[in-house]
Amino acid sequence: MSGTPNAAGESSPSNIASYKIIDSTLREADQWATNTLSRDTKVAIAKALDSFAVDYIEITSPSLNEQAFEDSKAIAALGLKAKVDAGVGSVALVIGASSFSSDVSHEKSMEKIQESAVEVITYLKSQNVEAQFSFEDTFRSDLVDLLSLYQAVKEAGADRVGINDIIGGTTPRLVDDNEKLTERKGVINGDIECRFHDETGCAVGNAVTALEAGATHIDTTVLGIGERNGLVPLGAFSARMLVAAPEYAKGKYNLKELKALETVVSEAVNINVPYNNPVTGFSAFTHKAGIHAKAILNNPSTYEVFDPAEYGITRNVAINSRVTGWNAVRSRVDQLGLVMTDDEVKAVTAKIKQTADTRPLTIEDTDNILHSFHAELHKA
Amino acid sequence: MSGTPNAAGESSPSNIASYKIIDSTLREADQWATNTLSRDTKVAIAKALDSFAVDYIEITSPSLNEQAFEDSKAIAALGLKAKVDAGVGSVALVIGASSFSSDVSHEKSMEKIQESAVEVITYLKSQNVEAQFSFEDTFRSDLVDLLSLYQAVKEAGADRVGINDIIGGTTPRLVDDNEKLTERKGVINGDIECRFHDETGCAVGNAVTALEAGATHIDTTVLGIGERNGLVPLGAFSARMLVAAPEYAKGKYNLKELKALETVVSEAVNINVPYNNPVTGFSAFTHKAGIHAKAILNNPSTYEVFDPAEYGITRNVAINSRVTGWNAVRSRVDQLGLVMTDDEVKAVTAKIKQTADTRPLTIEDTDNILHSFHAELHKA
Repeated sequence: MSGTPNAAGESSPSNIASYKIIDSTLREADQWATNTLSRDTKVAIAKALDSFAVDYIEITSPSLNEQAFEDSKAIAALGLKAKVDAGVGSVALVIGASSFSSDVSHEKSMEKIQESAVEVITYLKSQNVEAQFSFEDTFRSDLVDLLSLYQAVKEAGADRVGINDIIGGTTPRLVDDNEKLTERKGVINGDIECRFHDETGCAVGNAVTALEAGATHIDTTVLGIGERNGLVPLGAFSARMLVAAPEYAKGKYNLKELKALETVVSEAVNINVPYNNPVTGFSAFTHKAGIHAKAILNNPSTYEVFDPAEYGITRNVAINSRVTGWNAVRSRVDQLGLVMTDDEVKAVTAKIKQTADTRPLTIEDTDNILHSFHAELHKA
Repeated sequence: MSGTPNAAGESSPSNIASYKIIDSTLREADQWATNTLSRDTKVAIAKALDSFAVDYIEITSPSLNEQAFEDSKAIAALGLKAKVDAGVGSVALVIGASSFSSDVSHEKSMEKIQESAVEVITYLKSQNVEAQFSFEDTFRSDLVDLLSLYQAVKEAGADRVGINDIIGGTTPRLVDDNEKLTERKGVINGDIECRFHDETGCAVGNAVTALEAGATHIDTTVLGIGERNGLVPLGAFSARMLVAAPEYAKGKYNLKELKALETVVSEAVNINVPYNNPVTGFSAFTHKAGIHAKAILNNPSTYEVFDPAEYGITRNVAINSRVTGWNAVRSRVDQLGLVMTDDEVKAVTAKIKQTADTRPLTIEDTDNILHSFHAELHKA
């Protein structure tokens, strides 16, 4: 794949340390199955996105209706650092160009598409407005159509072209092939924005692959909300990029704002943060297995891909289970300020494992066992 | 990437239509932060996994304790089609070989690891037991160590070698590079099992890439449960593979059993199915936006990567929003058996959009609007 020279010795630009984030939470929330947001909520989300420092905030098209128009004015009036996208700071055009999304005969629709696309882009640029052009269904579109259309919109002055997987059907390999090809053909030499839906669980993998292959902008939503399975989740993507290029990810974005941002959005659209959500899922930094817990206490990097402190989150070594080890219990004993020898800790560990075999234990349960065991010791 | 000849004209085996699924739900649930399963629950999950037709069911090592031993006997006694893995039908060895997971000096630990690995595998094969050998932390391990260790265990007769990303830190590109290299070196020519954790959202993307690059077995858990962020979710993976190679995915696995399987597991470990879970998330096949809804009614493939009916699930076109279109309302009107002209449907659509601007609407709300509008019409 791209990013490093491959077997052919060919290399291509990797943008894993120079990408921009275009967040679509506000736009997708309006289209999504469960919710319509009030203006106050939209403003709160826009502010939280700006605190995280996303580069663009995409909102519902003001042309949709009166409310969307007023909402967009309210958000534009906030004077955020982020560019507000949708007829305010810039305009994004989307045209479905695959045979699936064209009712009329294919050739005919392509001519039409190209005509109107060029016309609109030319007008926007004459008004000094940032113009982005996207295929809605890139990976099922005819390649010749794609390339000629991209060429046309670039010539018309489009600031960015978009590669979209609206159905969530593509894979890292196809993303890599697609971008390498457009690159080799020299068709797209400017900014490339990618929008990946998540129907088959590959959105984040596709996004990092796209950046390695030369894409420059990634569309995200907070918690991945969006129609059907939504798109690239901002949190998972930021974790992926924190590992790929730590300095850029930490320097450009305020990772510690993620949890607050996800809280605002999850409450606004009334969803729970998934138990396995990267970074903020409730067990993301909980360690339970004995050997894991021991290693974590010695060196967190053993089982943590990054330090949760980067996100202002603390790890938790759980001892309320049958697979706990005495090292984990030792650290909890010390946390509680109880005085025990290693042999005593091993003894109480055996007791905890035994009890955990018979019934589920909460952290409180295990703390009680530790306290009463400790009391027994000092009574004796 | 692999699967198709790359720029160098080099091609490698793609196993997207010949993979096997090793499900670790029962093993991971025991290690996970929230729950310990009763024997009855384990048996129920094992049966549900067998109904879906996973190839292997991995369970907690019987050596852990009395209960694990009895549980494994109970599951082995079920006479399932799937192979039960962990000292019953076969044995999986895991050794942490990266510098992170070795306490003693690196070289020394590598000699030790190789010695004991070869010893155990030789013994297992002498007992006619299926033996699998895994690195716990493949992608942070020294390449020379990796290759020589793989070579040694293959020579010792290991049936499968495992490539693990225990920290969830790898990407599709790194997976592709890793497998292409081991292939080219001819080190691994037999079965390759891959286990990808999901800390940075790439587990499914890594899994499909691994299969394209020559891997043969993928580890999954139901709903992706597992320590921290868990690993490749069975549902998302099956959806990914249904798109990649429909005939194999439909022919070999009972996709219609997925929802029941996920229900058993989510209740057993007491978690909610994430709102954006592929296939079974509550809005996975809900369509709301006007243009999307219209297209879906004309041709579902426009915005659906596969037919939900493959999983025994039905789609839902929501009309309870400001962005609904009259085509969607038309289809709901027909579903409800109400008689309206197109103009009348357009009128009631306007009414719905108007109301949705002022307050969130449920499906019941919109049905009420349709019924009363219809009643008005026929009163007049």
